[in-house]
Amino acid sequence: MTLNGQHILAEATGNHPGAHFYAVNPVTAERLQPAFVEGTAVQVDIAARSAEHDFSAYRQLSLPQRADFLVAITTQLRKLEADLLERAGLETGLPRARLAGELTRTVNQLLMFADFVREGAFLQPQIVPALPERQPLPRSDLRLTQVPLGPVAVFGASNFPLAFSVAGGDTAAALAAGCPVVVKAHPAHPGTCELAGRAIRAAGDACGLPRGVFSLLQGSGKQLGAALVEHPLISAVAFTGSQAGGRALFNLAAARPEPIPVFAEMGSVNPVFLLPRALADGGAELARKYVDSVALGVGQFCTNPGLLFVLNDPALESFIHAVEEYLPQLPAAAMLHRGIKQNYCTALDKLVARSGVELRCGEIPESDDCFVSPALLRTTAEQFLVDSKIAEEVFGPASVIVVCQSFLQMQQCAAALAGQLTAAVHAMAAEEEMCRELLTLLERKAGRLVMNDFPTGVEVCHAMVHGGPYPATTDSRTTSVGSEAIRRFLRPLCRQNFPTSLLPEELQD
Amino acid sequence: MTLNGQHILAEATGNHPGAHFYAVNPVTAERLQPAFVEGTAVQVDIAARSAEHDFSAYRQLSLPQRADFLVAITTQLRKLEADLLERAGLETGLPRARLAGELTRTVNQLLMFADFVREGAFLQPQIVPALPERQPLPRSDLRLTQVPLGPVAVFGASNFPLAFSVAGGDTAAALAAGCPVVVKAHPAHPGTCELAGRAIRAAGDACGLPRGVFSLLQGSGKQLGAALVEHPLISAVAFTGSQAGGRALFNLAAARPEPIPVFAEMGSVNPVFLLPRALADGGAELARKYVDSVALGVGQFCTNPGLLFVLNDPALESFIHAVEEYLPQLPAAAMLHRGIKQNYCTALDKLVARSGVELRCGEIPESDDCFVSPALLRTTAEQFLVDSKIAEEVFGPASVIVVCQSFLQMQQCAAALAGQLTAAVHAMAAEEEMCRELLTLLERKAGRLVMNDFPTGVEVCHAMVHGGPYPATTDSRTTSVGSEAIRRFLRPLCRQNFPTSLLPEELQD
Repeated sequence: MTLNGQHILAEATGNHPGAHFYAVNPVTAERLQPAFVEGTAVQVDIAARSAEHDFSAYRQLSLPQRADFLVAITTQLRKLEADLLERAGLETGLPRARLAGELTRTVNQLLMFADFVREGAFLQPQIVPALPERQPLPRSDLRLTQVPLGPVAVFGASNFPLAFSVAGGDTAAALAAGCPVVVKAHPAHPGTCELAGRAIRAAGDACGLPRGVFSLLQGSGKQLGAALVEHPLISAVAFTGSQAGGRALFNLAAARPEPIPVFAEMGSVNPVFLLPRALADGGAELARKYVDSVALGVGQFCTNPGLLFVLNDPALESFIHAVEEYLPQLPAAAMLHRGIKQNYCTALDKLVARSGVELRCGEIPESDDCFVSPALLRTTAEQFLVDSKIAEEVFGPASVIVVCQSFLQMQQCAAALAGQLTAAVHAMAAEEEMCRELLTLLERKAGRLVMNDFPTGVEVCHAMVHGGPYPATTDSRTTSVGSEAIRRFLRPLCRQNFPTSLLPEELQD
Repeated sequence: MTLNGQHILAEATGNHPGAHFYAVNPVTAERLQPAFVEGTAVQVDIAARSAEHDFSAYRQLSLPQRADFLVAITTQLRKLEADLLERAGLETGLPRARLAGELTRTVNQLLMFADFVREGAFLQPQIVPALPERQPLPRSDLRLTQVPLGPVAVFGASNFPLAFSVAGGDTAAALAAGCPVVVKAHPAHPGTCELAGRAIRAAGDACGLPRGVFSLLQGSGKQLGAALVEHPLISAVAFTGSQAGGRALFNLAAARPEPIPVFAEMGSVNPVFLLPRALADGGAELARKYVDSVALGVGQFCTNPGLLFVLNDPALESFIHAVEEYLPQLPAAAMLHRGIKQNYCTALDKLVARSGVELRCGEIPESDDCFVSPALLRTTAEQFLVDSKIAEEVFGPASVIVVCQSFLQMQQCAAALAGQLTAAVHAMAAEEEMCRELLTLLERKAGRLVMNDFPTGVEVCHAMVHGGPYPATTDSRTTSVGSEAIRRFLRPLCRQNFPTSLLPEELQD
């Protein structure tokens, strides 16, 4: 399929003149064709107005019809599989096997929401019957269900060009909820975005849906996204990316005349705590698992472990030795784009320059390309407790081992952490009491707690929470992965004293 | 019980010197004893720190223990019933029967949450078992439950000194969720607040709870509330009151380094649509019900109907005639305090001065006391559609009849409305198609839709939504009345690969 570099809008607006931008291959540094148009407030307005216009028809589809649409998207994505994998590979440098797996994840995510919607239990209907004879006042018949919020703006992530992008989890959850979606394409993979967007468009056409249900806007700057969040017809925003980006959108949304929710997933450092017996028992295998989790996807996972807390005991040095032996064996790999690579180098540079932080393994890349190797740093809990900068996320394959002199100090470190997507504890059965104390602290900090494993690997299922207290997200009451992600785009509606003929199906007797 | 005019804090701080304020009887304009201390950032800090300190112990109570605490609060409230009703009567001017009913509502609300917590279903546990053999990657055991957010700040309303105040729905929901509560007492009924706060304190003591679980701060200015919302240890805010007040707190919370959710219920105009046959059929009885709903509680209900849309047909004039006959029969009554009365007069004055708005019945009060009589205004849909000020809330016993020339115009009015707590339609069976079209528009606007009834009367039950799109609330995804109100103070937590011994009861096999 030939890319056209255009937005996908309900109203044909012809070839857009004006500014353009290009994708760049991070491995070869080559500019990729075609040129992509830079969207403006004009296209934002078309997308938001058509989304609002077609919201009424979309939300009134039956649940099976909505589910069929989600399934139809997967059919169209599979039709474009070869194009998607090729283009995503060119735009991100990610290996083909990884991208193929990610496409499967994307498809399965849509199918999970299709089943979830078809089943209907997510509407959580509640029926409270009338009590006309109750004293001192009668009770009316009251029936509760969930309704969709309205048009949703989606900002995908650079690090998952399929599963957290145009046809990714946020879009799937919003469409499943009954909300039209306007996606702001990620400028690092605009061609992959166009292909996925065309799959959704084709699925909508095949299902006979009005075209305002889905729009895709291309653009490389911040103004387009800001205009989208500020558009009065947008009802909610989903975002996956940096803290700076997520907070900026949150601030814009909160300052609107009518504030709207922003569900920003902004990553975290995902602390891992190794208790002494688990450390001694795990040995070199534990060291390898840790390094693999740090380096997975060139460290570009929201859940990669940026902090490892260990006690200063005999097993520590052999663990660190094993890490230092294994880590240099991992090949250098290209990060997703120049901006991410540069941010990684700057952040790593600043971290190494902090007092008491030592670069143990790996290096700060100096090349002009996108390639990096993993890096291991080491500091003390004393230092960690007086320098909150050490706890800030370095997005990339780097991790800091924090050596604690006592379990009390380890607890102090846990208590000092900011909000996280995940926190993990490795402990043997004999360490259950220490483990329990740590977990009690970590429950306050994270959306997902992991025992005896590393945090990378986010299962798409009914029990997942990919969320957590700020700054991991802007709304800890939500998740952006798993079926519960649909709740972000629903609100409760109570119907009082309604005749059966006017009730939606799920509220009828 | 003798009031002491002090805050209720975990740390005894002695008699506070410094500024004081007094409650005023709105009926007699007399100052009421005693003086109440003005809280400062010092007391906010004590309250927030002790709430955070005792959060860990409180959230780890078993669900039956938490339920017992809620029941114990009702026992203590009933012990103080005579004092509460007397003092609330003095501070608000509300009739004793109304206050007695409100206390019963307050007690039943706490008992509902006690049952709800004891039952445990609100935790909505999800268990996804491990699939160790799955290809290409195994699946871990994943278990989802809900955990409390942390210390909650509660700002009660002036118009329900018991049910939406210190021991009201927000406090009940937050305590039920496992969150400590810091209440900012309403300065119009500080004595009632003190009594209710002492009931909660006594219940906590009887249950052996640490005292940081509940604090009450007295104060008459805005600074105290601002300091509370800005305190870094506060995790969420619940508010019932004016749009200006709710939005101000929302803005403060969104601007924090760590933003927190603000659940502000800010009232609305609660439009009612009368379709022609229902109007003709309802006659004088419908007119009386309308006026009663407008005037209930001297119009000081968040759900009183401020707008009534009717078609210009033969039945209209006799309906208006019946309204104009009945409305003057209602006696003047005192509003809750001078500030509310003055705001009501100013808002009514401005509304009457708008082009095309006619005061049909009642008057703009000119007396210096708190007394007002109901007022009826009339305008046209043409005027309504070009002047959005007519749709703004006038908090008090006033309502505007908007006369539409056609059903299309009525639909345009519905589409032009801002977010509402409620919207109501009166229709006969033969009008079902018109009704359906109106309801489709109104679903976008309100948290509760009412058929053939008026919106006042908010049932405390599992199906209630007391919420709605902005500006009715700052978070349309929530309700502040009914058992679903607990969700505001919970967040999901996923546990991965946990041994049974470390799982909470609801997640064990």
